[in-house]
Amino acid sequence: MTLDDVVADIRPGDSRAMQAATQRQQRLTKPPGSLGRLEDLSVQLAGIFGTDRPTAQGATIIVAAADHGVVAQGVTGYPQAVTAQMVRNFLAGGAAISVMARTCGVGLVIVDAGVATPLPEHPGLRVVAPGRGTRDITEGPAMTCAQAEACVRAGIDLAAAAAEQGAAVIGTGDMGIGNTTSASAITAAVTGASPARTTGRGTGRSDPELAHKIACVERALDVNQPDPSDGLDVLARVGGFEIGVLAGVALSGALARRAVVLDGFVSGAAGLIAHSLCPTVRDYLIAGHVSAEPGHSIALEHLNLQPLLDLNMRLGEGTGALLAAELVEVAAACLSDMATFDEAGVSDREPLD
Amino acid sequence: MTLDDVVADIRPGDSRAMQAATQRQQRLTKPPGSLGRLEDLSVQLAGIFGTDRPTAQGATIIVAAADHGVVAQGVTGYPQAVTAQMVRNFLAGGAAISVMARTCGVGLVIVDAGVATPLPEHPGLRVVAPGRGTRDITEGPAMTCAQAEACVRAGIDLAAAAAEQGAAVIGTGDMGIGNTTSASAITAAVTGASPARTTGRGTGRSDPELAHKIACVERALDVNQPDPSDGLDVLARVGGFEIGVLAGVALSGALARRAVVLDGFVSGAAGLIAHSLCPTVRDYLIAGHVSAEPGHSIALEHLNLQPLLDLNMRLGEGTGALLAAELVEVAAACLSDMATFDEAGVSDREPLD
Repeated sequence: MTLDDVVADIRPGDSRAMQAATQRQQRLTKPPGSLGRLEDLSVQLAGIFGTDRPTAQGATIIVAAADHGVVAQGVTGYPQAVTAQMVRNFLAGGAAISVMARTCGVGLVIVDAGVATPLPEHPGLRVVAPGRGTRDITEGPAMTCAQAEACVRAGIDLAAAAAEQGAAVIGTGDMGIGNTTSASAITAAVTGASPARTTGRGTGRSDPELAHKIACVERALDVNQPDPSDGLDVLARVGGFEIGVLAGVALSGALARRAVVLDGFVSGAAGLIAHSLCPTVRDYLIAGHVSAEPGHSIALEHLNLQPLLDLNMRLGEGTGALLAAELVEVAAACLSDMATFDEAGVSDREPLD
Repeated sequence: MTLDDVVADIRPGDSRAMQAATQRQQRLTKPPGSLGRLEDLSVQLAGIFGTDRPTAQGATIIVAAADHGVVAQGVTGYPQAVTAQMVRNFLAGGAAISVMARTCGVGLVIVDAGVATPLPEHPGLRVVAPGRGTRDITEGPAMTCAQAEACVRAGIDLAAAAAEQGAAVIGTGDMGIGNTTSASAITAAVTGASPARTTGRGTGRSDPELAHKIACVERALDVNQPDPSDGLDVLARVGGFEIGVLAGVALSGALARRAVVLDGFVSGAAGLIAHSLCPTVRDYLIAGHVSAEPGHSIALEHLNLQPLLDLNMRLGEGTGALLAAELVEVAAACLSDMATFDEAGVSDREPLD
């Protein structure tokens, strides 16, 4: 299946199931609307799963890691070796996403999407790297067009496998020293917002460091001139391998009719790429949380997505997506399993005049 | 143990454990602060459980139901019989809180704290009712002082039992047609905010109905003149039996050094009563979510609590507390189980100059 085939085969959410779900919500034993955002979410899930009694049990977070040539510009406080070290930490179970996955019974797929430092083979690590890190986007394109397509395709295969293995909810997660710089450039390129607005402090930049980071994003856009209407072009010019993989995950999740929960800023950039390739993907996207990175809100606004959680988090790794996956499961369960007024013998409110 | 004994025995959170937790958060493999609110929460949990490696596994939601004489004033659109019908729905597993508890593996304790309509005996129902619903607060006190103390004491016993049976996290939930009117009166009495600000649409009042509800709250305060410095007096004059039970649950959770997750507006009113009886209880309180009811934010501000979730929910039953209990468990697990930079062999950031 080519990327074009995938894009062509993604169907919109099932509007009949969504209508039926909206009506069913009115008959469940609660005041109408009292479950707030969970009700809206349940209607979206009805559209995704094609039924007004959806189940969204079983979540898998796909965590893609890669390195970024732009770190040569000093845009981040951590050495590049940390990307590989954190992948080892994921595999050993010591990272935040590892602990959360154990605690909540969520599946993890750890992906080497292009880590610069060689990693040992590990049964838990999927290697799909089209290269050992991107080139410096302030000097030219991040990757070739073939690499861009390769990483999106790899994400498609990863999510298809997760869906086949039973994941109803597929979350995105990222790791990559320097990747908020790439996400800032993508967000600026696709939404048209200025780099000053899309660029944040990442893992903790000071004021002068932030100014330098903004200048790097401006230079990356200036040097590369990405075409905002072509997601693959944006990805190739200012993207990252893990971002391409996650864009593929989003497309593939939509094709398989699964709920796709986006994590924070870097995942949001992947969502922008996927949306640019196929706007219908939006019917399947759920914004797990809003990151403390300012560019993330701009991306979510462009995607017309309202985040479920706002916990001032900015870690990535899929942590925000994982926490939101619990809410997704609950929203579907309430729609599907709550009793109606009739079933429970509960009196509905007196009709309004 | 008298109520005075309980209040006297509640100890503040363990400041040494909180300090150690704050330091430990800096050494965990993530940029400092990147888990946002979960980090603050984890420090509070360290204080509650007296260790910088807390576990908060095992949650129980105590859902107290009772009726309110003020429904005679036409403050709500549902008939009073719905309180009992919903208790049956809880017991049968068809309500939102029932579905959520099953989905998330959380324990439920369903309590008849004073339901007007007789309920059949049921092994899952604890009956602690000091009466069959309160009196109409627009005409005089809701209950006697003895009843007020009895329902708080009942809540103390219920939470003590839950703690003894292994609940690390105790959530509060309410059911009671008319109880947002009582919660509005309590919130106004304790915080000093006007009834116009503390009173909302409840299960769905129209504009004229809302104006009438506000007038009823004003009359309740005028007729009863509750003493804002005395939580028991406020409870007796304008409260509800389920609110007294939940105030007792909060006190008892604090005494047993458990995390107490408050649900929405009615639970917030119970939190205000508990806090008035013992300000130290605040160290143990976690605001699960902020309700769409406007008075809830006023109560949370008075308690100096920041809600974890904001999903535009306004159902009660403990639904917001239950969803937040998952976050509490995760926050503790990340603090306790994440690897440090040293343990994982991950390079920390270069020191700032």
